[in-house]
Amino acid sequence: MSLVIDCHGHYTTAPKALEQWRNKQIAGINQPSEMPKVSDLKISDDELRESIELNQLKFMQERGADITLFSPRASFMAHHIGDYNISATWASICNELCYRVSQLFPNHFIPVAMLPQSPGVPTKTCLAEIDRCVNEYGNVGINLNPDPSGGHWTSPPLTDPYWFPIYEKMVEYNVPAMIHVSTSCHHCFHTTGAHYLNADTTSFMQCLQGDLFKIFPTLRFIVPHGGGAAPYHWGRFRGLAMMMKKPTLEEHLLNNIYFDTCVYHQPGIDLLVDVIPYKNILFASEMIGAVRDIDPNTGFYFDDTKRYIEASTLTKEQKYHIYEGNARRVFPRLDQQLKAKGL
Amino acid sequence: MSLVIDCHGHYTTAPKALEQWRNKQIAGINQPSEMPKVSDLKISDDELRESIELNQLKFMQERGADITLFSPRASFMAHHIGDYNISATWASICNELCYRVSQLFPNHFIPVAMLPQSPGVPTKTCLAEIDRCVNEYGNVGINLNPDPSGGHWTSPPLTDPYWFPIYEKMVEYNVPAMIHVSTSCHHCFHTTGAHYLNADTTSFMQCLQGDLFKIFPTLRFIVPHGGGAAPYHWGRFRGLAMMMKKPTLEEHLLNNIYFDTCVYHQPGIDLLVDVIPYKNILFASEMIGAVRDIDPNTGFYFDDTKRYIEASTLTKEQKYHIYEGNARRVFPRLDQQLKAKGL
Repeated sequence: MSLVIDCHGHYTTAPKALEQWRNKQIAGINQPSEMPKVSDLKISDDELRESIELNQLKFMQERGADITLFSPRASFMAHHIGDYNISATWASICNELCYRVSQLFPNHFIPVAMLPQSPGVPTKTCLAEIDRCVNEYGNVGINLNPDPSGGHWTSPPLTDPYWFPIYEKMVEYNVPAMIHVSTSCHHCFHTTGAHYLNADTTSFMQCLQGDLFKIFPTLRFIVPHGGGAAPYHWGRFRGLAMMMKKPTLEEHLLNNIYFDTCVYHQPGIDLLVDVIPYKNILFASEMIGAVRDIDPNTGFYFDDTKRYIEASTLTKEQKYHIYEGNARRVFPRLDQQLKAKGL
Repeated sequence: MSLVIDCHGHYTTAPKALEQWRNKQIAGINQPSEMPKVSDLKISDDELRESIELNQLKFMQERGADITLFSPRASFMAHHIGDYNISATWASICNELCYRVSQLFPNHFIPVAMLPQSPGVPTKTCLAEIDRCVNEYGNVGINLNPDPSGGHWTSPPLTDPYWFPIYEKMVEYNVPAMIHVSTSCHHCFHTTGAHYLNADTTSFMQCLQGDLFKIFPTLRFIVPHGGGAAPYHWGRFRGLAMMMKKPTLEEHLLNNIYFDTCVYHQPGIDLLVDVIPYKNILFASEMIGAVRDIDPNTGFYFDDTKRYIEASTLTKEQKYHIYEGNARRVFPRLDQQLKAKGL
């Protein structure tokens, strides 16, 4: 039996006090007298336990997932709000909560960090938070927002040296990044129905255009939501790579890029596992996330992605890699923590 | 035997004189003394014939396609360049060339119009060109750019009244629109590898969020490139519709939205025809377009999409609709023209 490791879970069910504190912080940007202190936020361990036991942990147990790599709510990162200091305080609070969850449920949650990104701000300002999260909180990965402007894409492409300080730190700690945008503040892009998927496709294509992994051969990116449009259009991307005189996608990108399984119907998962080598696929559900209902066609939750993996034509060995083996390889610090527990 | 109607072809092989004229026009924006006259552009019928016979027509005959709905090169529309007058002159020239091709090859090419869009300019300025193209040139559809800014998305969503003058004209003439962006001038978005696919996903999601087809029940959109990421993430979109208390996607969108088959590998087409009702799929290749090589895995061109349709599990009847029947229904003026020819 594999462990079932969900590499993509966010703390979408945090106690209301967190959102209330954030709203005060946002109000405080224009009215400094309203700015709350970090110490104003009080959330007890019991509140954290309840928010998890009634939600993520309940679903994990019902669905048969063992461990979730758990990061702050993606849509609430909202790096476009305020300046670096606003983001730094907010990231620090959110990362601490995920750490506390990991301490309360050490067998089920392992933290992944959000970064204190802010549009236009040098990325070296994120390094102290990565240090803290890896060294003090045991984080095994980070979420990197390729568009901290929230849909306006004011930052350079992921292949630009702007991002290199973060990549150097990732290499140093041997942690991967999930390339995950936050809420859209652009009037044309729905957050979970357009911006997330577009960002996945865009990030993949930026990597295809560049030669980032020649510079950082051990850098590892997880492109979430099943890779956006990339696997469905794999022929287009293979053809574009040929036209650009790049190596094959396998050589050029698949030593460094991985896709998660947040695709919410059987045909989508079937395509993903048909097109993408199983070594590049990591199990994930993003539960509790964008889509929260039961699919009336199946009687099961849309985001119960384990069912689709089970029903696919993958062999038992391939499923082991998607559920566990690949996660241990892509997140070596996860592997270390599991081994330290005898897993 | 079905007719095989390719609903998505652009004049990507126009004689070099066209691009040279355009370059002069662009130079003339800042240096009015350089601005060329329309009459400076001279392309003979023989040049047009050669540009088609050696390219699109050759491939159509090799692959077994009968008719292409033929519009100006999408990436060259570049509505973000210059002002309305620049776009109006350029659209007029490009549409005339596609009309001339349709006159030279009346059995194989039927024109579809680009519009003289310009960012921030009221859409009623496009109506005269639609009138001209439909009434004088026999155009059976239009290409509507949901982002004339070229990747910055400065226009309102497709559900906004900003676009209604065009929709009213489409209803009046009973012509559909392919929702097709042009070249990206945004540093983050590769044109054919990100911007095109993102625009398809974005446009679909804008329609999902709104209720446009309650206002215009006979409006018809073709979302190209296999619908961007939409079919691959059909479960996500079904779930989002539920969360937004919209009707099912079938009721809400599939009386008005169609997808083309510009998906350049077998698994992608298999997913498309598995997930999307065959009544909503129109055959297309976008040949000669984004991806021009032979797939080394198959020995055939990536964009020879007819091979994927043939190899799919579709019945003969379903293939008839994808190749011919749906195109006649979605483009009634095409149907009229074919019937007038005894087809």
